[in-house]
Amino acid sequence: MSSHLSPGSFTGTSPVWLREPDDVNALVPVLWSSTAEKIDGVLHIGGLSVPDVVANVNTPAFILDEDDFRARARAFRDGFAGYDVYYAGKAFLSIAVARWVAEEGLFLDVCSDGELTVALRAGVDPARIGYHGNNKSAMDLRRAVHEGVGRIIVDSFFEIERVADVAAQLGVVQPVMVRVTAGVEAHTHEFIATAHEDQKFGFSINSGDAFEAARRVVESGDLDLRGLHSHIGSQIFDTSGWEVAARRVLALHARVDAELGFVMPELDLGGGFGIAYTTQDDPADASDLAQQISTIVESQCEALGIERPHLSIEPGRAIVGPAMCTVYTVGTVKQVSLDGGAERTYVSVDGGMSDNIRPALYDADYSCTLASRASDASPVIARVVGKHCESGDIVVKHEFLPGDVQPGDLVAVPSTGAYGRSMASNYNHALRPPVVAVKDGSSRVIVRRETVDDLLATDMG
Amino acid sequence: MSSHLSPGSFTGTSPVWLREPDDVNALVPVLWSSTAEKIDGVLHIGGLSVPDVVANVNTPAFILDEDDFRARARAFRDGFAGYDVYYAGKAFLSIAVARWVAEEGLFLDVCSDGELTVALRAGVDPARIGYHGNNKSAMDLRRAVHEGVGRIIVDSFFEIERVADVAAQLGVVQPVMVRVTAGVEAHTHEFIATAHEDQKFGFSINSGDAFEAARRVVESGDLDLRGLHSHIGSQIFDTSGWEVAARRVLALHARVDAELGFVMPELDLGGGFGIAYTTQDDPADASDLAQQISTIVESQCEALGIERPHLSIEPGRAIVGPAMCTVYTVGTVKQVSLDGGAERTYVSVDGGMSDNIRPALYDADYSCTLASRASDASPVIARVVGKHCESGDIVVKHEFLPGDVQPGDLVAVPSTGAYGRSMASNYNHALRPPVVAVKDGSSRVIVRRETVDDLLATDMG
Repeated sequence: MSSHLSPGSFTGTSPVWLREPDDVNALVPVLWSSTAEKIDGVLHIGGLSVPDVVANVNTPAFILDEDDFRARARAFRDGFAGYDVYYAGKAFLSIAVARWVAEEGLFLDVCSDGELTVALRAGVDPARIGYHGNNKSAMDLRRAVHEGVGRIIVDSFFEIERVADVAAQLGVVQPVMVRVTAGVEAHTHEFIATAHEDQKFGFSINSGDAFEAARRVVESGDLDLRGLHSHIGSQIFDTSGWEVAARRVLALHARVDAELGFVMPELDLGGGFGIAYTTQDDPADASDLAQQISTIVESQCEALGIERPHLSIEPGRAIVGPAMCTVYTVGTVKQVSLDGGAERTYVSVDGGMSDNIRPALYDADYSCTLASRASDASPVIARVVGKHCESGDIVVKHEFLPGDVQPGDLVAVPSTGAYGRSMASNYNHALRPPVVAVKDGSSRVIVRRETVDDLLATDMG
Repeated sequence: MSSHLSPGSFTGTSPVWLREPDDVNALVPVLWSSTAEKIDGVLHIGGLSVPDVVANVNTPAFILDEDDFRARARAFRDGFAGYDVYYAGKAFLSIAVARWVAEEGLFLDVCSDGELTVALRAGVDPARIGYHGNNKSAMDLRRAVHEGVGRIIVDSFFEIERVADVAAQLGVVQPVMVRVTAGVEAHTHEFIATAHEDQKFGFSINSGDAFEAARRVVESGDLDLRGLHSHIGSQIFDTSGWEVAARRVLALHARVDAELGFVMPELDLGGGFGIAYTTQDDPADASDLAQQISTIVESQCEALGIERPHLSIEPGRAIVGPAMCTVYTVGTVKQVSLDGGAERTYVSVDGGMSDNIRPALYDADYSCTLASRASDASPVIARVVGKHCESGDIVVKHEFLPGDVQPGDLVAVPSTGAYGRSMASNYNHALRPPVVAVKDGSSRVIVRRETVDDLLATDMG
């Protein structure tokens, strides 16, 4: 009746991809970090019982599987051998995580002064940091150049001038990449290819702006053009979008070579590698992706008669997403009758849209499991909702849970590492949850829970 | 081609409601707080030049027009004479604002321990506080009852037991209201009426749960049933949805009277009063709404042969929304070619989805004006975007701005008081903006800007 009505309301059915599991107590491995297991129905991660971990920090809490994070980082590093792999800090960044990224031999992308601060406090070598953003301030740029950030991805003609000015003032030559738009937008198994892109990022290849940007950088004595940068979307499961984008970007790369006599040494194809949030998702592994993308680039370079530039990619979600889950305590359970005679079990937990805005923001699906005990009860289709004063405050839209789920139970939601804590808010004056890293039977709080004093620190009364 | 692609992309046209203004420098009064005016093209609020105000606090910044906030509070108080008017703190709450609410004779709704803390620090009389939420914890409830909160809106059978237990332990009789769902969901000029509601809040009238909830509260010696509570939606512009809801809720009210022999003294019809974000919105004034709602309730009570209960309502957005605007500094301006030959002017500002998630979350429209100077340039259709690493990071989807808008200009977005700062995040490690109250030529920072130290206070390294 209306497209303006709030999400989640008046949708009576569960989706076709949701299948009743053989064992509702079992984990679906693809959704969970590598050390996650159920022991007598109790979720364990990093060799620790999740109920024990959260007994110390309360719920909601993010549990980060350090081994899993590091293994995924290595899988990209080794799968994309010969590439520079930049971890996209916007997915989730803390000082500990920045350190792990560096220790595993990855580079790091930041997109704000705050993220740069975290990286530097973690001791990340500035030369291994890339700096993104469509609207970096002059002050941001000054600090980035001063600190010796390895590359700044420039996004507008204004910014080319600003970076050049700052570099000149500081007496350095700043390496930059030129962010281009190739008219390709990809998501899951689909992509759209157009001549133009109606978005804020980058310089259009089609309009000629991207070539002009490269020209200005080449001609600036204060900038070192490392290459072009393209990013086509998010949560992508196949490489057909990259194929079209790479063709267009490499054509520009070749034109810069031919017309400006300048061979850019590098090319960045961005991020967007998909992960499994539910059983409907089927992510490829890093080495398969690497092989496909390399093949695309190589055949294009051959066709264009150019040397293959040194490649880089920027996974964020694909490393931290599946490495983290969120643990909630159930507060209430409610049977709601739907029109048509069906029933839905609403399970309210002690977090919600303040710690995971993605269901409301992107209509994102998640999964979950009962984490604190085994159950013999028949599965029911549940909707896990948060505690916020908003009907769109949904954590998991559709999932099978044991029919005896009850207040006091713990429910764990996998794959919340990306854009969970990083987009968290204090909506309804909620306190943002901690992130607890677990590994080899030990846990460590790497981001502590907020307190009311934190929350009111900025309230001047 | 796909419903999964990111918002804001590949939408080439501007909406039908957007009309070129006669004077692009002029304010559209309905969108702005009452003291807002342009003087020689410069935005003034509360008798102060906005450029001067933000010179002291930097941008982005929220500017809160104290006189306007108080006047809107009084308009509801006086327009809904004979009602209790609860300000819904979830829209925006700080200690100063809670104090203004109390000073203007309004009651206050909170929905978390954090909001309750703010209210108590502001010195709000607990008896004038209502406490909402579908999943209040036992600890939350204990504190609320202990502090003497005037009414708790109970939302589940579990909660009825919990509140009764806490009240018994503390030796008090706790006033409560029963949140019911009437099968009505309203937004703008539309409403949906069904038998059931597929949402987390309340007890269904149709299923009988709502009557059962009332019965249990009546029979509890530890609880005092004040009445039923219904909330039908948000950003509502006409009262037809309230009419259907009131009919259903009053029928239950009468049934409780008839079958339980208990006359509930009160009835709360919730909030959802719409405001103008753009020229497409046409909000009614408070006294018109009051008259219409009172007429609906009175005719229903007459038809049912019952006495009209004491009424309460809960405006939040309608008080604070138009009282606040956000001021940004332009960082870049970019012409983007669209398929079909059109062009769009992208204006990047120094905030975005971290200080206003509503465009991305609800596809919400906003307006804006050049705040720092007059311009003779012809208007262009601009899209104002934020600085975040996400293509959906849009502040104002479509607005006319002078064609010479340039870096360094200030742009002000009206009607950001509700769910702007309250839903703000640190996405991309952005620092959340201050709220500056202005009045009679003076300004006061009531919420200060976050610092990097605030941001990293919870990072344990």
